[in-house]
Amino acid sequence: MNTEELVELAQQLRVDSVRAAAAAGSGHPTSSMSAADLMAVLLARHLRYDFERPAHPGNDRFVLSKGHASPLLYAAYKAAGVVDDEELVTFRKLGSRLEGHPTPRRLPWVETATGSLGQGLPVGVGIALAGQRLDRTGYRVWVLCGDSELAEGSIWEAAEHAGYEHLDNLTVIVDVNRLGQRGPTRHGHDLDAYARRFRAFDWHTVEIDGHDVDAIDRAYGEALSTRGQPTAIIARTLKGKGVADVEDHEGLHGKPLKNADDAIAELGGPRGITLHVHEPPSARSPHPAPAGRIELPRWEKGEQAATRDAFGQALTALGTARPDVVVLDGEVGDSTRAEYFAKEHPERYFECYIAEQQLVATAVGMAARAWLPYASTFAAFLTRAHDFVRMASISGSGIVLNGSHAGVAIGQDGPSQMGLEDLAMMRAVHGSTVLYPCDANQTAKLVAAAAGLEGIRYLRTSRGGSEVLYGPDEEFPVGGSKVLRSSAEDRLTLVAAGVTVPEALAAADALAGEGIRARVIDLYSVKPVDRDTLRRAAEETGCLVTVEDHHPEGGLGDAVAEALADGGPVPRLVRLAVRTMPGSAAPDQQLHAAGIDAESIAAAGKLLVEEAVVR
Amino acid sequence: MNTEELVELAQQLRVDSVRAAAAAGSGHPTSSMSAADLMAVLLARHLRYDFERPAHPGNDRFVLSKGHASPLLYAAYKAAGVVDDEELVTFRKLGSRLEGHPTPRRLPWVETATGSLGQGLPVGVGIALAGQRLDRTGYRVWVLCGDSELAEGSIWEAAEHAGYEHLDNLTVIVDVNRLGQRGPTRHGHDLDAYARRFRAFDWHTVEIDGHDVDAIDRAYGEALSTRGQPTAIIARTLKGKGVADVEDHEGLHGKPLKNADDAIAELGGPRGITLHVHEPPSARSPHPAPAGRIELPRWEKGEQAATRDAFGQALTALGTARPDVVVLDGEVGDSTRAEYFAKEHPERYFECYIAEQQLVATAVGMAARAWLPYASTFAAFLTRAHDFVRMASISGSGIVLNGSHAGVAIGQDGPSQMGLEDLAMMRAVHGSTVLYPCDANQTAKLVAAAAGLEGIRYLRTSRGGSEVLYGPDEEFPVGGSKVLRSSAEDRLTLVAAGVTVPEALAAADALAGEGIRARVIDLYSVKPVDRDTLRRAAEETGCLVTVEDHHPEGGLGDAVAEALADGGPVPRLVRLAVRTMPGSAAPDQQLHAAGIDAESIAAAGKLLVEEAVVR
Repeated sequence: MNTEELVELAQQLRVDSVRAAAAAGSGHPTSSMSAADLMAVLLARHLRYDFERPAHPGNDRFVLSKGHASPLLYAAYKAAGVVDDEELVTFRKLGSRLEGHPTPRRLPWVETATGSLGQGLPVGVGIALAGQRLDRTGYRVWVLCGDSELAEGSIWEAAEHAGYEHLDNLTVIVDVNRLGQRGPTRHGHDLDAYARRFRAFDWHTVEIDGHDVDAIDRAYGEALSTRGQPTAIIARTLKGKGVADVEDHEGLHGKPLKNADDAIAELGGPRGITLHVHEPPSARSPHPAPAGRIELPRWEKGEQAATRDAFGQALTALGTARPDVVVLDGEVGDSTRAEYFAKEHPERYFECYIAEQQLVATAVGMAARAWLPYASTFAAFLTRAHDFVRMASISGSGIVLNGSHAGVAIGQDGPSQMGLEDLAMMRAVHGSTVLYPCDANQTAKLVAAAAGLEGIRYLRTSRGGSEVLYGPDEEFPVGGSKVLRSSAEDRLTLVAAGVTVPEALAAADALAGEGIRARVIDLYSVKPVDRDTLRRAAEETGCLVTVEDHHPEGGLGDAVAEALADGGPVPRLVRLAVRTMPGSAAPDQQLHAAGIDAESIAAAGKLLVEEAVVR
Repeated sequence: MNTEELVELAQQLRVDSVRAAAAAGSGHPTSSMSAADLMAVLLARHLRYDFERPAHPGNDRFVLSKGHASPLLYAAYKAAGVVDDEELVTFRKLGSRLEGHPTPRRLPWVETATGSLGQGLPVGVGIALAGQRLDRTGYRVWVLCGDSELAEGSIWEAAEHAGYEHLDNLTVIVDVNRLGQRGPTRHGHDLDAYARRFRAFDWHTVEIDGHDVDAIDRAYGEALSTRGQPTAIIARTLKGKGVADVEDHEGLHGKPLKNADDAIAELGGPRGITLHVHEPPSARSPHPAPAGRIELPRWEKGEQAATRDAFGQALTALGTARPDVVVLDGEVGDSTRAEYFAKEHPERYFECYIAEQQLVATAVGMAARAWLPYASTFAAFLTRAHDFVRMASISGSGIVLNGSHAGVAIGQDGPSQMGLEDLAMMRAVHGSTVLYPCDANQTAKLVAAAAGLEGIRYLRTSRGGSEVLYGPDEEFPVGGSKVLRSSAEDRLTLVAAGVTVPEALAAADALAGEGIRARVIDLYSVKPVDRDTLRRAAEETGCLVTVEDHHPEGGLGDAVAEALADGGPVPRLVRLAVRTMPGSAAPDQQLHAAGIDAESIAAAGKLLVEEAVVR
């Protein structure tokens, strides 16, 4: 396409953006119009993409970080011939693939769900890193960012990561249209404000007029020829470009144009341009065949081992068996034990430093390229990446997260390092799996099982050593539980997981000494939860005590209560959890102070049984 | 103090750091030793602080962003004469004020809890902003950062905010000791890598040898005399400085020195230096007396209004009544309606742009200076700041958070913009209050009530308009609920909040048409929850249906189940919640698709009652 044709294509993208939003009665046409020239030149001249084969290993990858400019994306799909005009005007309607913000669940050409600003670039960095170090098929990653979202720290985590890793296969295009949602951005049209920030993080930068298609073309060429550095193209644009009524006007964010027909006429009316996007170079998928059966580490019953150690060892074994497994860690691999994997499989280990948002985003990016990422840090610090986990679930991304150092059981470090809300966070993620093992063999089996699941999988591990309770050949199906004590005389059930399992067993022993038989359930699968076993225990024992090293809300107790909310009769229930703010103390002192140790469990169980008799 | 005395003081801080960690058997002495000279010069020469009066309005504010270097902080307190030697060696022990990571809950001189890296500087920016625009008593804010934590995006959100706001009362001191937890940092001793990043964000920078007390003194002086810009002092240091066995050695993060006695001898042995820190200039607290009774906005029953509109209006009224109320928003004030406050009280409104971590950190910083912050953004995007909310609760910080655009009820924008896990996140915060109003008058009352509470308060608001159900004089105590339908013939109870309240009322009407009387409870106070009313409903009706515009985990259903987990009998329970991944659709279509509209509620209620009869 020559200059004139590119200009025409850009106008078509504007017209179709205006039309889609007009049909929907909502959406962000003005944010689309500012970036139409940037998109037109990319699509027509530089992107290499086979729309018929979105999984093609040679395909470039495009990420719309400013996800609200979805009309522009869908207009581009129409120009590429994969969305027709009829579908375009279903934008934002019930059942349409063309959602308000694009998601890969609906559209095969979307790499990652966007709409929470500041996330597209971090995920793009993950894809580019996969391209550079794993896939090596020569694809490039193009990310279109808005200027407002550069206020997000996650953008600079990503910039730091990309600059440090010399990701010259990555280009970010910043659509500096000067106007955010509420009004002007911090830096307005000061392109250099953005360029010098990227340069400080070791990027190559180019500043251009984002409505000059030739300048855009040259900038893309410059990005392609830059070696050893990612490139940021900082483009001066006008929001609503091309329609005088809205161009560069405040107060029009996220609003369809009032006079769509006039605007379309002003833009030169609809065109029927369809183009053939450049083919990707032929490339083969880099994934070798699975190497065979996994040889998990084994512990004998009665040994002492920390579940975090088991995590690291099992992960290493999994990596040997599965060449698609990659591991990422937030600069605490010596604590999470991800470093075991690093030693054995350094080419598939990614140090993400203390940047948990980028840690999860890198995992999401790699999962988008069909790798299976395990990402680990302290459970407490995964809260830093909550929004990324939320968006990953909207993407339908398949990633495994490990949170170590769960709960008050870590001891002296104090509350800042204690994961006490991670179960609540992870349970509430759509389609998630939440696993909380109590011993080494169980951990190893669950590390392996997680690989076979879909969506967001969370594995909670503990810092301290504990006794191995299960033999190495025991199986732990996801959605199951283990009944560790059971008899026909059980008068209550103790439901525990992780560090509270040995406490519950000791409590059951103590209660037995007082003539009260207690069932003990190890609820290692917090989500999905074993409803049948809980329901049976509820009906057979009538009283339940749940005990967890977590705040009372959203964790094990809530999971048990939810399992019993099936319309059937519910037992008397008491929950033990961490209800006070911990300080520093030894692990056993912490469990006691929180009222989740054996003594507290036995006391609560006894009281519940006695009250049930009285009533 | 002269050079020699400063060197001696620094050595004492090292000795006491080594001693504290040795007594604890854990802790981070090497991370303390690298920054000892930086701390000594600050304490002896530049900090103005009355340790007897930590609330003194003229006091400088010191934030230990690298919170793990707590031994250094406590050693400094000892040098300042406020912690004695006996207390120093209680470090990290049960009941000690000297926790593994410092918290203001325990120590009056700590501004904010640290230990989750990358948070001290953002909170420091909040304090400095309070100093510049609210307090104006001339205090300076000093933040000591580690180099590892500069990988956190939150640091660059903070840097952007501080540079943009010209916070020349803020100095950050970066202790570049080259070694993180697991090994070398990204940039090692490349001071300029850090300096050019800060400069790109419009900071003044100084690079120094962090073990040269005279250079440190000059750098602090340069920071004090710099106008219009915050200053970053980038200091080259050695981890474990002063003890050859550990100095600049990898693998010693977070470990006490093996031969503490030898190390102490090498450092010249214990000293008994106590110093008198400079007095702050006399200053008066800027808080004027409350202006009087709040005149809340009023709506008549039957009017249409969105709870977000009521939030904005009530907040404005609150701001008129209480001059200590400040409002912050993440560049969506036109959506959250925080902009109403901005128009009326511009001097107490703070635009935080799209940077939710800094939004919450600014609130925490202002709360530390006794202002009452209300911080708002979309409920979905508060997940971005989860770790900051978690740490705020550890601080005991008093802030109000508003999450607007909750749930599928927002409609066409799709899942990226829907808060569907915010209740789970906020309930699991220690000591939090979670409020979810369903109409305008209720919202207004709860906005006002939130001001009188402690800790983290969360208010969930909705995008769309709804009918005003309550008169303007109705009261809504926190921890209460409203029974909207009730009779002696009730056979089930519908528990709803927010947008599901009108749906539950319509369902009750439909059920009444089929001869089934249903109680309806508006559970606007999700935490604390009205156990008595729920318990009574459970006993009187035997069947409960909860319905919420939120994922099934961690929200209203879990709150109700928890309320009933008091050892008493539990009713048959069914929970309606958003169990599928929403797409784009109109609000009523969304509620229907999620199975939380009137029709779904009525169907679930009928089934539950019928099953209860059969069983």
